[in-house]
Parts: sequence; structure tokens; C-alpha cells
Amino acid sequence: MVKIDKKVKTERIILGLDPGTTVMGYGLIKVTGQKLELMQFGVIHLKRYEGHELKLKKIFDRVLTIVDEYHPDEVALEAPFYGKNVQSMLKLGRAQGVAMSAALFREIPITEYAPKKVKQAVTGNGNASKEQVAAMLKQLLKFEDMPKLLDATDALGVAVCHFFQGGKTTTGTKSWKIFIANNPGRVK
Amino acid sequence: MVKIDKKVKTERIILGLDPGTTVMGYGLIKVTGQKLELMQFGVIHLKRYEGHELKLKKIFDRVLTIVDEYHPDEVALEAPFYGKNVQSMLKLGRAQGVAMSAALFREIPITEYAPKKVKQAVTGNGNASKEQVAAMLKQLLKFEDMPKLLDATDALGVAVCHFFQGGKTTTGTKSWKIFIANNPGRVK
Repeated sequence: MVKIDKKVKTERIILGLDPGTTVMGYGLIKVTGQKLELMQFGVIHLKRYEGHELKLKKIFDRVLTIVDEYHPDEVALEAPFYGKNVQSMLKLGRAQGVAMSAALFREIPITEYAPKKVKQAVTGNGNASKEQVAAMLKQLLKFEDMPKLLDATDALGVAVCHFFQGGKTTTGTKSWKIFIANNPGRVK
Repeated sequence: MVKIDKKVKTERIILGLDPGTTVMGYGLIKVTGQKLELMQFGVIHLKRYEGHELKLKKIFDRVLTIVDEYHPDEVALEAPFYGKNVQSMLKLGRAQGVAMSAALFREIPITEYAPKKVKQAVTGNGNASKEQVAAMLKQLLKFEDMPKLLDATDALGVAVCHFFQGGKTTTGTKSWKIFIANNPGRVK
């Protein structure tokens, strides 16, 4: 008789994204059962690119490169729902939309989290500072050097938040049910 | 001696896009010298798709399909800069960003026009109604049936507006200078 090991080791990769109009953070974690492992994190600098369209193109290209290099199973997006004014929200919406496009193009489901939710999930305090989030992640994921820009740890934070949520979507659950129904190839 | 015909017939295709969160209009014109010709126009219905991400994916896929089918040389985008509130601007920004991504992915330059500018260019009146814009385009581009949704003629309007502007960018000129410098393969 063939003995079947019921403990199938499932591994998944979560890409956290924190899109902004001048800096965009990204962080990748590998999840094996309840074990978390840091894969990569960093920022995409956008200030050096003159012009709005070129910045957007750069976001798309870089996110697509990350997606094609690490093949994440899920994307977690840090998405503020409020902003200073309509102008800044339009710009932020565009940056988010472009980053989302690269993931959607490769048919990777996206879950959105409000910044407060991310802070709450990582530190237990929805009003924690960026430094507190970074310090907690440093301990949890055992990295040595703090990044210069905390957009990188923010992005890592949203990936960890998504893991703590058990991969359940907080928004758009319905859409992904339909998306998966329409894309059976993506169901693993 | 080889006789060189100096009158080289240049032809270019302009894709006009009017991105929205429930309906997105598109319109394609072919420009040969000063001659304008209607290629195609229509709308992408988004209401039927439940969930924000699925709508965005649909926008990206459909715009990419149009781009890959008609190979436009330039994209003209109708882009309102003001909106009711920050929530609606974030959603509109995302829809715009996703539509722009598909064009940027294929390295097609984008020029943005405010709705008032489009109305002014097409009808001579910046406060013209959608119906007036449609009627003028019907005459100019010689199509018989009015579309049910005027988002289609709005998109055609922004393509025509771009033609009237002589393809000069109103925004982001700098960015495209740099973009073209970085992408010499796109210069024709």
C-alpha cells in the first residue's frame, strides 16, 4: 500500500506593495505553513524621472519585473482611502492603478489593506509609527540593516498583514470569487 | 539619377480614451496629412463586472487588445482634473492608471486633455454638450449611427482634439522628450 503523507508542505509567496508618486515600496515574503521568511524588499525611486507618464511607466515596468522574477502567488496592496485633496488622490490612484495592472496582467489576485490595518496587524497598534512597524518586522523577519526609506518596510508590513489575515480578503472578496471562477487555471 | 519623391505620405493612428469606472470610451482615427478617417469607436462596459479589481483587469485587457489590434502611434487621454470627492478621484485615477499602463507597456506616448479643451477643439465652445460634440464628430468623420453611449464619441473627440493640436503635448512634453531619448526605437 502506498502511504500518503497528509502533511503536504504548501509554500506561497506574498508581494507587498506600497505605491506612492515619488517612492514606491515593495517587499516579498515566503510563507511555509506558519513560517515566514524574508525574500527581498526595497524601494523604486520615482523622483529622478521627469514627467508623470514616465513615472507611471517605471512603476509598471518595475512591478512587472518583480512579479516575473519572484512569481508571487498573491499581492497585498497598502491603499490609503483618504488624502489631502482630489489632485493628490488622482495621482495616488494612478500610481496604484499602474502597480495593480502589472499584477493583474499576470493574473495575481490583489488584496487591499488600509495603513491603519497594516499597523494594527504588525504591531498590535493601529496608530504605531513607521519606525515601530519597521522594528517589529526586523525582529520577525530577522534582517540586520534598516532600509533608508521606510516605504520598504511599509510594503513588507502589508505582506505580513496579509499573511496574518490568513490570505482572506478584506475588500473585493466577491470580485476574486468571480475572477477565480473565470480563471480556473489560477486555482491551486 | 534616382528621383526622390519629397511628398512622403505619412499616416498615423490616434487612439482616444475616455476612462471611467463604469463605462470606458475609445475611439480610433487615422490621420493622413490633413485627412481624418474614422477607424473604430465604442465603449467597454464595466458595470457587469463585480468588484473593483476585476473592472480594472478588464480595462487593462481591453485597452491592450485595442492597442495590439490597431497599433496606434499616439494615445490621447480625456482626463478630468477635478471631481466630486477624494474617493471618486481615487477610483478615477486607478481607471486612468490602468488604461495608461496598457499604452505605456507598448511604449505609446500619451497626451492628456481636459474635457473643456476637447469640447473647445471639436466644437469651438468649451461648454458644449456631449450631444453637440457628437453631432460635430458625426459630420467631421461621416458616421451614420450615433452610439447609444456618448462616452464613445467623447473618446473620439479627444483623438480629434489631439489631431487639431498637431500632436503637440499639452502636458508632459518634457517627459516624452526624455522617454524618446531613452527609447530611440520608438522614434519614427
